[in-house]
Amino acid sequence: MFEVLQRDPSSKARTGRMALAHGVVETPIFMPVGTQGSVKTLHPDELEWLGAQIILGNTYHLWLRPGHDLIREMGGLHGFADWKRPILTDSGGFQVWSLSKLRKITEEGVRFQNHLDGSKMLLTPERSMEIQAALGSDIAMLFDECPPYPCERQYAENSLAQTTRWARRCKEWITQHEPRSGEGRQCHFGIVQGSVWAELRERSARELVDLGFDGYAIGGVSVGEPEEEMFRAIDHSVPFLPEDKPRYAMGLGTPPQILEMIGRGVDMFDCVMPTRVARHGQVFTLDGPIHIKNLEFERDPRPLCESAHPHVARFSRSYIRHLFRAGEILALRLLSFHNLHFLLGLTAQARAAIEAGNFLEFKDSFIRRYTKA
Amino acid sequence: MFEVLQRDPSSKARTGRMALAHGVVETPIFMPVGTQGSVKTLHPDELEWLGAQIILGNTYHLWLRPGHDLIREMGGLHGFADWKRPILTDSGGFQVWSLSKLRKITEEGVRFQNHLDGSKMLLTPERSMEIQAALGSDIAMLFDECPPYPCERQYAENSLAQTTRWARRCKEWITQHEPRSGEGRQCHFGIVQGSVWAELRERSARELVDLGFDGYAIGGVSVGEPEEEMFRAIDHSVPFLPEDKPRYAMGLGTPPQILEMIGRGVDMFDCVMPTRVARHGQVFTLDGPIHIKNLEFERDPRPLCESAHPHVARFSRSYIRHLFRAGEILALRLLSFHNLHFLLGLTAQARAAIEAGNFLEFKDSFIRRYTKA
Repeated sequence: MFEVLQRDPSSKARTGRMALAHGVVETPIFMPVGTQGSVKTLHPDELEWLGAQIILGNTYHLWLRPGHDLIREMGGLHGFADWKRPILTDSGGFQVWSLSKLRKITEEGVRFQNHLDGSKMLLTPERSMEIQAALGSDIAMLFDECPPYPCERQYAENSLAQTTRWARRCKEWITQHEPRSGEGRQCHFGIVQGSVWAELRERSARELVDLGFDGYAIGGVSVGEPEEEMFRAIDHSVPFLPEDKPRYAMGLGTPPQILEMIGRGVDMFDCVMPTRVARHGQVFTLDGPIHIKNLEFERDPRPLCESAHPHVARFSRSYIRHLFRAGEILALRLLSFHNLHFLLGLTAQARAAIEAGNFLEFKDSFIRRYTKA
Repeated sequence: MFEVLQRDPSSKARTGRMALAHGVVETPIFMPVGTQGSVKTLHPDELEWLGAQIILGNTYHLWLRPGHDLIREMGGLHGFADWKRPILTDSGGFQVWSLSKLRKITEEGVRFQNHLDGSKMLLTPERSMEIQAALGSDIAMLFDECPPYPCERQYAENSLAQTTRWARRCKEWITQHEPRSGEGRQCHFGIVQGSVWAELRERSARELVDLGFDGYAIGGVSVGEPEEEMFRAIDHSVPFLPEDKPRYAMGLGTPPQILEMIGRGVDMFDCVMPTRVARHGQVFTLDGPIHIKNLEFERDPRPLCESAHPHVARFSRSYIRHLFRAGEILALRLLSFHNLHFLLGLTAQARAAIEAGNFLEFKDSFIRRYTKA
């Protein structure tokens, strides 16, 4: 299902090819997030123009509304959203953790009140697998327990043990039900936990690898920890993950962080950030982020960035600033489109640099300009 | 500048061709409204897919923000919004009337406080012409006084006299400054007032026609009057307008109203309604409007309407309902796109029916199905 194509001689960066039920994904790759069955502000055609090879759907949100049974009836998430390329769904665990109220974790699963109407709900490993099977995603994530940052060592240890026990139950459910995605098999990724402790990360990785999954994610990152801890979590996990399986850093990151993690051997990324900051007027440029609201762009005839896609590059910063200030939806569309183009372009350039054998040079030169270092 | 191509034998409907600075417009035509320099939620490429031949810009809004001087610097409204086809701008008078506070009308013009920051401003006939010249629209509307509905006869009479005097001042400004639109001449349309009195409508039309403009609009409609009064205002004005000039009913209307007015000899329409109601979930269909929020569409696999454009028709009502309920911007985009497609399709079909000599049949059959009569 996954094949490493090329390895960078001076880092852990690599290119790969992942064959999924709905198509092939070339790694390293950034995956736009379609929380509620839509990558915010964008039409699926536009995601294709952007070269998005795979997008995310959020199990928690889609389970609550419109419901996974409805989505299954409407042809799974692919049919419902009319998206023909691969989809990855998360387990719902992270949203239960970050959005719901009165969360209570037991061996069985997590009881909580949902954020829409406060209904009491229960999410278990089996339930998460069942919902993701109904959604029919190409890649389903295992149901894990994500410790907060910071947390006590004992909490992290118990939490990772819980994650492993739940992973075993997910595995059993998968073996029993053999979930499908379109015409193919649904793939499943385990999630390495263990917070900031190297030893716990290693243990978590080894336990999951023993169970055997199609790929492995590094979880418990992007939960408020400093950037060094984020990189350490990657460094503490990657050596214990199989070379021939894809590695996915969940919920990350800024353009420099993505390059740093590619250099650390990560193949897959997702983040709501590019579209979320776009809706607040923040724009990625090769010279670092800018705020389109700023007065300096009032009469700026240049496009958002010299690397902008023609769909956006035809408009001046002056016009987009006006649209943004006037509350026009077109501004949110153009900025979201641009930021995704920027990150998808970044991972495409990273792939090209790895193939050309000059990844570190590319990374350093990109980061130097981006951070004005 | 305008040529009547074909006349319907059984009504006043006609097809025509209007040659403007930025291209040819075939009438009857519906003009999408781009209040603040953007037709809400849509990218200009999409307006081209929709076959939009001409769009509107609002002088009042663009004057206030970002300002007509900035827009002139950025290449006029065409360059600023990167829209290559014709644009019509209104005079600003209607928005002063409907949005501003503490409005005071004098011979000079209208003093008011703007709705954005309450600044005191003055809009005069010359100022309106000057702003529209800076915007560089293909068609600029004269500055008029729009009486409310209902109003006293004396008010309507004074108001139309005011409108004629202002039209004369506009004409003088135009003669003096010879405003341009791109490589061509800016055209100017007078606005017939006179409220509900046939005699006043006739007087207004005659006075404007004596002054001589490129086209004529019927104003003071869509201000809260019953539908019969709206049709009467058209019937009272059209006979006194030249056959060889385009006629424009401002701010209208529903699909049946548009057909009724085409049958009364009107060539041009504009309305914010299709995009505004879209943002509230209302969808035009051949069987009348539907509300996408309704539970009956929860599992409806059909497209919004059998006539829907492929950009929208690929999605089920079920999916669009979900997006709308979840507050996803894609829902607003799809519904806005669809409603404009519906009205632009309606005027295109009306043109074809007039050419085929069966306009009344088309109109009656459309309205019968639409209103379930």
